Amino acid sequence: MSDKNKKPQKLKARLPRGFVDREAADIRAANQMMETIREVYERYGFDPIETPLFEYTDALGKFLPDSDRPNEGVFSLQDDDEQWMSLRYDLTAPMARHVAENFQAIQLPFRTYRAGYVFRNEKPGPGRFRQFMQFDADTVGAPGVQADAEMCMMMADTLEALGIKRGDYVIRVNNRKVLDGVMEAIGLGGEENAGRRLGVLRAIDKLDKFGPEGVKLLLGEGRKDESGDFTKGAGLSEQNIDRVLRYVTTGYHEGSAEISKAARAGGETSPLMNFPGEDVYPSDNMSITAWRDAVGESKTGQEGVSELEHMIGLCRSAGYGPGRIWFTASVVRGLEYYTGPVYEAELTFDVTNEKGEKVVFGSVGGGGRYDGLVSRFMGQPVPATGFSIGVSRLMTALKNLGKLGQDDVLGPVLVTVMDGDVESMGRYQRFTQQLRDAKCEMFPKGIRAEMYQGNWKKFGNQLKYADRRNAPIAIIQGKDEREPKDENGNALPPVVQIKDLIEGKRLSGEITDNAEWREARVAQEVVAEADLVAKVKEILAAQAEDRRRAKG
Amino acid sequence: MSDKNKKPQKLKARLPRGFVDREAADIRAANQMMETIREVYERYGFDPIETPLFEYTDALGKFLPDSDRPNEGVFSLQDDDEQWMSLRYDLTAPMARHVAENFQAIQLPFRTYRAGYVFRNEKPGPGRFRQFMQFDADTVGAPGVQADAEMCMMMADTLEALGIKRGDYVIRVNNRKVLDGVMEAIGLGGEENAGRRLGVLRAIDKLDKFGPEGVKLLLGEGRKDESGDFTKGAGLSEQNIDRVLRYVTTGYHEGSAEISKAARAGGETSPLMNFPGEDVYPSDNMSITAWRDAVGESKTGQEGVSELEHMIGLCRSAGYGPGRIWFTASVVRGLEYYTGPVYEAELTFDVTNEKGEKVVFGSVGGGGRYDGLVSRFMGQPVPATGFSIGVSRLMTALKNLGKLGQDDVLGPVLVTVMDGDVESMGRYQRFTQQLRDAKCEMFPKGIRAEMYQGNWKKFGNQLKYADRRNAPIAIIQGKDEREPKDENGNALPPVVQIKDLIEGKRLSGEITDNAEWREARVAQEVVAEADLVAKVKEILAAQAEDRRRAKG
Repeated sequence: MSDKNKKPQKLKARLPRGFVDREAADIRAANQMMETIREVYERYGFDPIETPLFEYTDALGKFLPDSDRPNEGVFSLQDDDEQWMSLRYDLTAPMARHVAENFQAIQLPFRTYRAGYVFRNEKPGPGRFRQFMQFDADTVGAPGVQADAEMCMMMADTLEALGIKRGDYVIRVNNRKVLDGVMEAIGLGGEENAGRRLGVLRAIDKLDKFGPEGVKLLLGEGRKDESGDFTKGAGLSEQNIDRVLRYVTTGYHEGSAEISKAARAGGETSPLMNFPGEDVYPSDNMSITAWRDAVGESKTGQEGVSELEHMIGLCRSAGYGPGRIWFTASVVRGLEYYTGPVYEAELTFDVTNEKGEKVVFGSVGGGGRYDGLVSRFMGQPVPATGFSIGVSRLMTALKNLGKLGQDDVLGPVLVTVMDGDVESMGRYQRFTQQLRDAKCEMFPKGIRAEMYQGNWKKFGNQLKYADRRNAPIAIIQGKDEREPKDENGNALPPVVQIKDLIEGKRLSGEITDNAEWREARVAQEVVAEADLVAKVKEILAAQAEDRRRAKG
Repeated sequence: MSDKNKKPQKLKARLPRGFVDREAADIRAANQMMETIREVYERYGFDPIETPLFEYTDALGKFLPDSDRPNEGVFSLQDDDEQWMSLRYDLTAPMARHVAENFQAIQLPFRTYRAGYVFRNEKPGPGRFRQFMQFDADTVGAPGVQADAEMCMMMADTLEALGIKRGDYVIRVNNRKVLDGVMEAIGLGGEENAGRRLGVLRAIDKLDKFGPEGVKLLLGEGRKDESGDFTKGAGLSEQNIDRVLRYVTTGYHEGSAEISKAARAGGETSPLMNFPGEDVYPSDNMSITAWRDAVGESKTGQEGVSELEHMIGLCRSAGYGPGRIWFTASVVRGLEYYTGPVYEAELTFDVTNEKGEKVVFGSVGGGGRYDGLVSRFMGQPVPATGFSIGVSRLMTALKNLGKLGQDDVLGPVLVTVMDGDVESMGRYQRFTQQLRDAKCEMFPKGIRAEMYQGNWKKFGNQLKYADRRNAPIAIIQGKDEREPKDENGNALPPVVQIKDLIEGKRLSGEITDNAEWREARVAQEVVAEADLVAKVKEILAAQAEDRRRAKG
């Protein structure tokens, strides 16, 4: 710590702002979840690939160094050859670079998945992190919307594989070309209207948040929120507002009166979470008719509606009804590089937010078609589509549903240390290894066990440690057990004490901090050293049986 | 791409220097290997934790910003509040920060493991990467060397769990205190001799590379290598050179004449790979005597020898003999923060290097005791020990031994596309989903299947794709199969063609690039649509049986 110039001083241990450490339960839950996702993607024929965390900044696109320091939004630094490198901010741009760089060696269609950390150089805030994990799947070299339809089905299958019930999720699908067509129809086509188009798209994107009334304001003059802040609107005419609104609420207004039930009880914070109840989805044909009407003569728009029609056909014949994959104008997706179908996985059940309000859980991932992203590097078109899951958000959802990380991992059998001489410790160490070598139902690869590695002289700490680690059993051998004698003072073979800590907890009714009190109550047996492993197996089996019974 | 200032031009797709993309086979092999390591660590009672990729630069220690830009060696950047952050260069320093930051909440001993990427900002070169994966395990709050002994046993168990035979590896153990004691004994104790000590340690560290003769030169005046480059030596007296050399080669010189067989056949490139053959290890007692002699009156040195003696006792009583855990002066370990026992996992079998020479594989990981690393942040001592495995190096070793990634992953059943209308595609999509929903022995979670997503109009590409993906079966349905007729022109129920592509490959004797020729030869059957899934299951089972027979 640069000792030459300063006196050494105590360093402060602190995480950089916007980053978090992850604990065992969280890691195990994430691994379990990602293993399930991986299984689904593999079943769909996808293979893993992985790219490094750095890319050249220009290859990532969008964010570029405009002066000495690159834009906000990404973490960037200059390599010693002066080239700017950035930490990836998503997994799509690096994958596009990978495909372009290895185009000759790759067999199209290229179907891959990948999980990895991405980084955003944003102001850290509550629940907003600068490093987080995404899990992506993409098909590159897939010109037809059958590839987009497949992505939607795969998202649905993934959510169900994770234990999310049908009805508790819906995949919402739209098409950017239809949105573009609607823009053309209201006279906002062409390069010169790009800015106003963005305003309209942003307004539409707020449908879930503000409902049709709010969107109406945002399409017109503007909207004042509860705090009095004013957001300027897109400034459309009454007629055009009407047309756009009729388009985005297709199904909501026209589908069924019952759908307004979808405005749901907790109306105030989610005035229209745009999810119809099960079985009250508008008919696909009605939606198609409405969209054809909305895009008018626009060629792009008509093409988009035909693509949606094709996707509807494929999904329905494969058995995915509107309760699972819902074609609706109410989804937009923010990223600029989308060129065709866009889709979003939404969880439709209520959760209580940090303010204590009931809200719909909402999006856990999504994606779309990005036909331009690989071809930026190439002299030829390379159509592609894919989606991304926000890993920690999906984990939160699964925990809410009780589908993840519910099973406590059993701690190690603790071999306590009573004496510190080499001979005694050698025995403890041998017990420990014997247990690790022994297989049983609970531990098919060998019993989880450890010798206490802290300062063994405070025995209370050893039992406290066993408790905190959720240890099922403690092994104890002091001098009395190592060199037992009969009443006449004759030596007997060495024994060990075995404490059933779970039995102990149960007997004590509840866990308290008083280690000594608990110690007095735990169930405990004394067996010959030679019977140690057999006895531990017997107790572990009994505990497993207890857990089974407790579960019913 | 900053369109305002420049004409858009085609971007070049390239990986940043020193980084690599990883392919499916490599990822699957790494996952398989890491799962095994994880199982062993869990069995030893360790739990996972994870820290983010960034740390504040000062918390990492050693590398500090001395001016505008931090030292070479780490990737660093300044946060918007001016604080320097760095990407971690190992997993130990961040773990130390984590423990110090959460000290009140943590129950010591804290036993954790973690796998993750680390970064080195070095000049990229062949085989030298700037992002690579480490897999660490540590016990924090463990004052006794029983924790170090356990680490050595865990390394041995890990290598065996991965399929490395006893005799093909050895864990070499030494103690920094003994090295320090030897330094004191030759008059190099104290702060003022730190530089010369480092020179001696570096010389010792070269024993594997240059043999005793080379180390002798490096301890004295210096050594000229084959290219004529001269490395200045540590400048010890004849007598001290002798003393150091006698120490580091304990067991080599004095153990047994047979050990010189350990100078092995490929002598030229590894003049002394310091591994005795099995059963010719020097006795522990002889080593201890020699070390006590080497450290003379040094208190630190004698303490170090006692610690080694204690570790020997524990390992031997737990059944780990010198052929697995070898206590030897020949291991040093480079990192400066080690304060006691150091240990290294070495693979002792020969491999052929890129120059075609036979060399001993060597180190795949190691570690040691670092009692100062956590206490830098604290007002109190926090003793700790741990080790790190180099994931890609260990993978290379396992591949060399044929223990990893030998089983090809079966590709998806390919449902080919003959017609592009919605109705036909709907059928293909339905076949695909039916397969994915069907479980069988090869695919217990559902058959891996996909509908062809590329440009379906070139049918040859579809079969080429099936071949490249290692697809076991292709499904084909054109108009003839969809609307078959009997000889009188009456409609029959729809059928599908099922091609057994592996049978086809076998019939053809070998795989060629001529897709059409192969197509003519593949085994093929026509079944009713309703029997599709059953037939696919039958073929998959037959293929699995064939593979079993081929393996014997």
